[in-house]
Amino acid sequence: MYTFNIKTPDKKIIPALQDKIDNLTKPKGSLGRLEELAVQIGTIQQTLCPVLKNPQNIVFAADHGVIVEGVSFSAPEVTAQQIYNFLKGGAGINMFARQHHFMLKVVDCGVNADFGHLPGLFDRKIRKSTTNYLHQAAMTKAEMNRAIEIGIEMVDLAWQDGTNIISFGELGMANTSASSIWMSYFTEIPLKECVGAGSGLDNKGIAHKYNVLRQAMANYKGDGSTEDILRWFGGFEMVAAVGGMLRAAERGMIIIIDGFIMTNCVLAASKLYPEVLEYCIFGHQGDEAGHKLVLDVLQARPLLNLGLRLGEGTGAICAYPIIESAVHMINEINSFQKAAITKYF
Amino acid sequence: MYTFNIKTPDKKIIPALQDKIDNLTKPKGSLGRLEELAVQIGTIQQTLCPVLKNPQNIVFAADHGVIVEGVSFSAPEVTAQQIYNFLKGGAGINMFARQHHFMLKVVDCGVNADFGHLPGLFDRKIRKSTTNYLHQAAMTKAEMNRAIEIGIEMVDLAWQDGTNIISFGELGMANTSASSIWMSYFTEIPLKECVGAGSGLDNKGIAHKYNVLRQAMANYKGDGSTEDILRWFGGFEMVAAVGGMLRAAERGMIIIIDGFIMTNCVLAASKLYPEVLEYCIFGHQGDEAGHKLVLDVLQARPLLNLGLRLGEGTGAICAYPIIESAVHMINEINSFQKAAITKYF
Repeated sequence: MYTFNIKTPDKKIIPALQDKIDNLTKPKGSLGRLEELAVQIGTIQQTLCPVLKNPQNIVFAADHGVIVEGVSFSAPEVTAQQIYNFLKGGAGINMFARQHHFMLKVVDCGVNADFGHLPGLFDRKIRKSTTNYLHQAAMTKAEMNRAIEIGIEMVDLAWQDGTNIISFGELGMANTSASSIWMSYFTEIPLKECVGAGSGLDNKGIAHKYNVLRQAMANYKGDGSTEDILRWFGGFEMVAAVGGMLRAAERGMIIIIDGFIMTNCVLAASKLYPEVLEYCIFGHQGDEAGHKLVLDVLQARPLLNLGLRLGEGTGAICAYPIIESAVHMINEINSFQKAAITKYF
Repeated sequence: MYTFNIKTPDKKIIPALQDKIDNLTKPKGSLGRLEELAVQIGTIQQTLCPVLKNPQNIVFAADHGVIVEGVSFSAPEVTAQQIYNFLKGGAGINMFARQHHFMLKVVDCGVNADFGHLPGLFDRKIRKSTTNYLHQAAMTKAEMNRAIEIGIEMVDLAWQDGTNIISFGELGMANTSASSIWMSYFTEIPLKECVGAGSGLDNKGIAHKYNVLRQAMANYKGDGSTEDILRWFGGFEMVAAVGGMLRAAERGMIIIIDGFIMTNCVLAASKLYPEVLEYCIFGHQGDEAGHKLVLDVLQARPLLNLGLRLGEGTGAICAYPIIESAVHMINEINSFQKAAITKYF
């Protein structure tokens, strides 16, 4: 596995940030979470005047071998079909990206389809779908490293774009299954509480999904290390996201965390490098069973709770304007002194 | 009191809206609250392709005579000082308005100061501050009607601007006090549960505020009608907002409701015309004690919960991009048919 050098941001700047915020023309604390965000972002960037530059969302896409076990409500061909939809600008994530001026990149890490040369798609296909992890590892160590590399490469490209705030999304039918297993391993919460409806399973479907995943965990024969759990159950798109998150933190970017799947990716990343969490802003708490539980383990309070469960990065981008407001707040609101206003307190 | 002709939007369009949303390329229901918003907005506008035009926030400002009783943490002169700050673009609301391209209008309904000719300020001063309602009515019937008229006029101006989505904000030291009394009268929730910290009272301050307001309610000698409660305890800025909300609903505009004070204004408006609520989207649930309770009475679920308690319309504008996302969603995401994607369900 690659080594990442992730710094813990120096907290010495926090009193100065807090003092600046407390002197803005508003009752103390009256901008709530925005004030907390401004402190976090100012600390990451080590400045009293933080800026957000060229926000970017990277969607990693791949298929999961385990889908043949009937764990997903969605048809397996949807992964490939949605790639075309993304590239034409017709998907949910395109709409959010346009609205909030995010650059959007779509990366094929292992979709089970031949796209040929498809303009706009980053072709980084490792293999057409992972192996069904009911009986064996989803990917080899070499493939896992390749997925991490893809994440690193995409973040390095974003860095070259001048991006300092990034989100990651995913596309991959059956990837809530892998996420539930990661969650159960890394949080020690029983699998049952980690498994949910995904894209629309009914109770019977959820019970079947649970039984398949329980069996997959029982059949696991690896060494139990974080890396081994990643490769045994992971999707290529999920491991790429883990690599991307670690690289983004290494580069001092702000990372906006999307929904259930990306939350479990950052959970996995934090098992390797706990410092990654210092760079994370959680965008959205979704309805997928288990999301609230894993967020609690991470002591994360997402900005939004709007019942989104689309993935792709939508829950991250939807929260972006709030993060932007926090930065505008600390830069644009007048101080009491400058405005000649009697301080509220 | 003026008569408003507020139509209940025709619900016959809802199945067609729902059908359009269910055929967008995403798992059914996976955009949660955005889907509900799109249905509401499409119903208000009676179209499958709704649009948001020229969003606008109107801040009504006025002083409250009751402030001499020590019910507010803020100094009384802050109302006037903040007017200058608004006009210079240095307040919280300016920052949000710039970010989300809201036209911002500031209206003096009764600030206790002489501004002379102040470019950018709508001078509609009724009187310098209401009367202290501890012993008598805050305003006369004629003054109440004048405040309603101001709200109507400002919405008519917004209509001429081409605005079809509007929010109202307030500026007025001590106006959480009037709001708490309105709330208690109109919801029949005991006053104690309606009173909170406002801009920063401690527990002792809250207890004093409660005692003053309790005494004011005990001293009330009016006829108990909604209109009489409005004028006895209201602020000019709050009654103007009530008038504005009713006119906006009459004109078929979408109304974004800000925090505690504006929630109590729409509560009051709904006592006169319950149909007004059909046009309302609640932006933010704040930390002010009682806000959650009054929202529950209105069966309102605000889009955000970020600990804001600044007023001015900030909680409404901060929620705007989510409303905008809902409209983009229904207009921009591809249908399954158009994208040639296997329907998820």
